[in-house]
Amino acid sequence: MIPSEIIEKKRDGNKLSEDEIQFFVKGYCDGKIEDYQMSALLMAIFFRGMSDRELVLLTDAYVQSGKTLDLSAIPAIKVDKHSTGGVGDKISIILAPLVASFGVVVPMISGRALGHTGGTLDKLESIPGFKVDGSIRKFKQQLEEIGVAIFGQTAELIPADRKIYALRDVTATVNSIPLMVASIMGKKLAEGIDGLVLDVKYGNGAFILEAERAEELAKNMIKVGNYYGKEVTAFITSMEQPLGYHVGNWLEIKECLECLRAEGPADIEELLLELSAEMLVLAGKAQNNEEGKQMSLQALKNGQAFEKFLNMVRYQMGETDCLLHPDNYPGAKFRQIVKSPKSGFIEKIQTRRFGMAAVYLGAGRSRSSDSVDAQAGIILSKKVGDPVSKGEPVCEIHTNNESSIEEAVNLIQNSVKIGDSKLSPPKLIRKRLKA
Amino acid sequence: MIPSEIIEKKRDGNKLSEDEIQFFVKGYCDGKIEDYQMSALLMAIFFRGMSDRELVLLTDAYVQSGKTLDLSAIPAIKVDKHSTGGVGDKISIILAPLVASFGVVVPMISGRALGHTGGTLDKLESIPGFKVDGSIRKFKQQLEEIGVAIFGQTAELIPADRKIYALRDVTATVNSIPLMVASIMGKKLAEGIDGLVLDVKYGNGAFILEAERAEELAKNMIKVGNYYGKEVTAFITSMEQPLGYHVGNWLEIKECLECLRAEGPADIEELLLELSAEMLVLAGKAQNNEEGKQMSLQALKNGQAFEKFLNMVRYQMGETDCLLHPDNYPGAKFRQIVKSPKSGFIEKIQTRRFGMAAVYLGAGRSRSSDSVDAQAGIILSKKVGDPVSKGEPVCEIHTNNESSIEEAVNLIQNSVKIGDSKLSPPKLIRKRLKA
Repeated sequence: MIPSEIIEKKRDGNKLSEDEIQFFVKGYCDGKIEDYQMSALLMAIFFRGMSDRELVLLTDAYVQSGKTLDLSAIPAIKVDKHSTGGVGDKISIILAPLVASFGVVVPMISGRALGHTGGTLDKLESIPGFKVDGSIRKFKQQLEEIGVAIFGQTAELIPADRKIYALRDVTATVNSIPLMVASIMGKKLAEGIDGLVLDVKYGNGAFILEAERAEELAKNMIKVGNYYGKEVTAFITSMEQPLGYHVGNWLEIKECLECLRAEGPADIEELLLELSAEMLVLAGKAQNNEEGKQMSLQALKNGQAFEKFLNMVRYQMGETDCLLHPDNYPGAKFRQIVKSPKSGFIEKIQTRRFGMAAVYLGAGRSRSSDSVDAQAGIILSKKVGDPVSKGEPVCEIHTNNESSIEEAVNLIQNSVKIGDSKLSPPKLIRKRLKA
Repeated sequence: MIPSEIIEKKRDGNKLSEDEIQFFVKGYCDGKIEDYQMSALLMAIFFRGMSDRELVLLTDAYVQSGKTLDLSAIPAIKVDKHSTGGVGDKISIILAPLVASFGVVVPMISGRALGHTGGTLDKLESIPGFKVDGSIRKFKQQLEEIGVAIFGQTAELIPADRKIYALRDVTATVNSIPLMVASIMGKKLAEGIDGLVLDVKYGNGAFILEAERAEELAKNMIKVGNYYGKEVTAFITSMEQPLGYHVGNWLEIKECLECLRAEGPADIEELLLELSAEMLVLAGKAQNNEEGKQMSLQALKNGQAFEKFLNMVRYQMGETDCLLHPDNYPGAKFRQIVKSPKSGFIEKIQTRRFGMAAVYLGAGRSRSSDSVDAQAGIILSKKVGDPVSKGEPVCEIHTNNESSIEEAVNLIQNSVKIGDSKLSPPKLIRKRLKA
């Protein structure tokens, strides 16, 4: 097979065969197909899309590019959750131990800060000593022993995605539904799960702007999951303001501690309980959504979720002292309050821009090689719909890089719109999708 | 500027600015932008096209990537011709000396065999000793002294095209009108010409199948040429059977020798005189097309064109003995006649396939690193519309590679369709386009 002929075929809107997809993905991983040929194919896929069959074949080629987790020795049902990412989205950190506290196994392979969004792994690493990288063997062992682990993608699991994702990032081919589906579902299918709950976000703080496109992505992920015999539920959720009040690595961990006591912000709790209930139903632990929610809330209140969280932190070499006494955690060197320039109501938060302010402060990455600042971030005082007086704090910024403050304040002022009328905050959970 | 943002802009159908195009092309030539980013941009251009302004800017970036020929010291008018390529298209080799024999300067930068087509340079190199590579200085000197030169593209002239063309070839981005226009017109504009005649081919032996698409390409090339203040005329011509009877390097030179005596095939002469007349009109040597044709025919008959051709060959170190005594040229080791399986008429020649047969025999290249066989090729006995009896020769194949014969015969048998009805051969010159 000739790579340029396969590119041409896709370019002209024809369907690729199983052999062609395998040849291209495998050849790329083996270094036989060049970066410039893969990027041309990716751009052709961006424009032409993929059929359901091609999508399954591409995901399959991703999965087959590396090892897969065999969790069959663990008798419990394994359920995972994936979010397409947003600003202040710390749900996984609370959800994984919460669900695992009911004896469900949650084998979570998670990601790092990307663009204007934070990363679950970066947040967890703000806990001193916390390790997110380890072998498949170690991951499995932790799952056998405590039922929950949040690790980074290892070189062993779907290396095709690692290599192709890095290429997509620099060739403007990230925002393609089939490529997103293969990347997400490839990772999840390699985890050896039985069921999966997806949080597909749309809006001005998500990677996907339109709810319809988020639905399209969700439906395709469900299709691929079902093809593999996995139960998949997707929630289409709004990302039109940060989730909760804290944005930044340690700041979000701190907010997670509140949520783990059922004392967190309402929006986080709403989404958390919905996702948790769905996972418990998929795992056969709850009869229905209502029961799942009640069980979950109970597990937050009685400390069983927090206990599981501490257990996970200890297993992953993290120090728990700061989790038990969060006020002992060292603060950022510089703090500054951003005040409201006028009285009125918070009408809108341009969330991508708000997220970029946190990146500037050090909470995220401009390039994949950048390191993140555990302490940097933003604490909101107000959310959409809240009244605000002139001079009242809208948020507080935290950073160790003084020179970033001006640009961050500027971005925040340009992202928070204060108007005269009280608008309701955008509905958080728009839709639940199932095959 | 960030390369991926420029790719994204084009991907989303927005127009690129002068700075963005310059940044990308220059950055690519300087090695600061990677192959995989250029190929992603090329594929995005394939899908999104380019505005007139972008097209001029891209061509400009190509031209500015290297040196340009300054022929202003030569008082004569400089006119060149470019063909988009076909099977048996040897016109340039006759046309350049023919037009130059009237005192017009013809600074021709030509190409090599590509795909199923032969290359002017490869054909000329079948003349022992003939050199097609040299410095700009040498090229200019030859033009000053004899008014005609056919050289290959040097590393000094539009290096952007060399580098990008090689990339397009392996990423399925050759067949894009803006990219074709920038590549062709960039080369021609760097030659320092005053006028240009284009032979834009369509049909089953051309790179462009549909006449409409050939016209679109032609119109865009005229637009870019006019923007640069050059007079450009384009002919849309059919490539639905080989041009003339000979296909292959030396075999075509041999046919050129007949044409240079006005004893060549009618189709070659028709197109040759049309293009020559147009060039003479552009150069102010003929009042009109009719006069230009008469002058050209005369120059073939009286030997002045042949004399100029010999002169060019001598200047480029070629031996003229074989041109004066072509039968002394050594023949290919293996010859085989392909006979007609039935009686009837030649109804159609699938010319791309026919050209591929010549490539198999050694006349062309499967990969750019392949060398070509000077003696290999095919001599047709029949063309479209000709009657043929069962067992009568349709063509004769020449090769030095015995193992290629079977595949070539097979391709030829699959390309020549013999039917019951006498069809007229396809009209050769479809249209003349001018700004």
